[in-house]
Amino acid sequence: MPQGKPEYVPDDGLTTRQRRNRPILAVHTGEMKGKSTAAFGMALRAWNQGWNIGVFQFVKSAKWRVGEEAAFRALDASGEGGRVEWHKMGEGWSWARKKGSEDDHAADAREGWAEIKRRLADERHDFYVLDEFTYPLHWGWIDTDDVVDTLLARQGRQHVVITGRRAPQRLLDAADLVAEMTKVRHPMDAGQKGQRGIEW
Amino acid sequence: MPQGKPEYVPDDGLTTRQRRNRPILAVHTGEMKGKSTAAFGMALRAWNQGWNIGVFQFVKSAKWRVGEEAAFRALDASGEGGRVEWHKMGEGWSWARKKGSEDDHAADAREGWAEIKRRLADERHDFYVLDEFTYPLHWGWIDTDDVVDTLLARQGRQHVVITGRRAPQRLLDAADLVAEMTKVRHPMDAGQKGQRGIEW
Repeated sequence: MPQGKPEYVPDDGLTTRQRRNRPILAVHTGEMKGKSTAAFGMALRAWNQGWNIGVFQFVKSAKWRVGEEAAFRALDASGEGGRVEWHKMGEGWSWARKKGSEDDHAADAREGWAEIKRRLADERHDFYVLDEFTYPLHWGWIDTDDVVDTLLARQGRQHVVITGRRAPQRLLDAADLVAEMTKVRHPMDAGQKGQRGIEW
Repeated sequence: MPQGKPEYVPDDGLTTRQRRNRPILAVHTGEMKGKSTAAFGMALRAWNQGWNIGVFQFVKSAKWRVGEEAAFRALDASGEGGRVEWHKMGEGWSWARKKGSEDDHAADAREGWAEIKRRLADERHDFYVLDEFTYPLHWGWIDTDDVVDTLLARQGRQHVVITGRRAPQRLLDAADLVAEMTKVRHPMDAGQKGQRGIEW
């Protein structure tokens, strides 16, 4: 065998460079809060590359991620780096014409996934954060097989980071990167309540 | 006992509100890369509170954290949120008059800690990121007892987040929050190299 040739070349029709820059599917799971925090930290690097970022928050609480949202809106407006779109289920999704139903979280979540599917097909963003997306999967509101098949078949250079507890095994199996955040000690264990600037 | 009174009130001279808003000492450790990423995610929330942020990077590589640094410089310049100072050991520390010695990393690290000590005494920042600070502690370049004593005695509302592998036990014992990032799977395991926008 000639020197410098790898022993095994995957039969995937990709050049070495394409394989090296393969878009990532990452899942941040575990019991600790850092899951989303680390996803938004990754998005800072994506922003610095000038990538187009889409954040989709599958949570209903108005307080969550306000700090991160304000920071990415400022980064989007800075005229440097990439553009950032931020969409929240809790406010009926930013792209939707009408507000989501107050009491049908499952329908809201499905509407969110349907939009993300359209955007993946259009290669709309370079970097997607699907925040707390594991819950509608875990609860059966969104079909995990459809999600995994869609993500594995996505075209172009679209990186996807999914956060949340209880990620379905099929999603973990499909991911290129799985990070588990483990809580060793947290001030809330000692009875301390969440505080501004630290928890939100 | 009257209703609504906690059974046990710590004898620390603090009001409930003061105890609730107690400044955090957090340590992000473990084998996974998310340690620093999550610390910078936390800093986004601090920024949104208008807090003054000081980042101290105890690493020598020019490529590390360029994305995060660019994002926080843009946030600092945005006129919203808090101010952000970013200091790198690799470039001789931004506050130092002369460049650090090329080959004395231990002296550079000690100089960094001496400056952080001065700033803690002056209550200069509300939120400190001491990135990869565990290494000079682990290697014995900086005295862990001095660090822990200084941090435990710090005045005012100064939050501190320390990142890096192999955090000394005394530091972990002193921390309010310890998060461990565990690698479950990483694309580099499959021979993929680090890529722009994802790793830096």
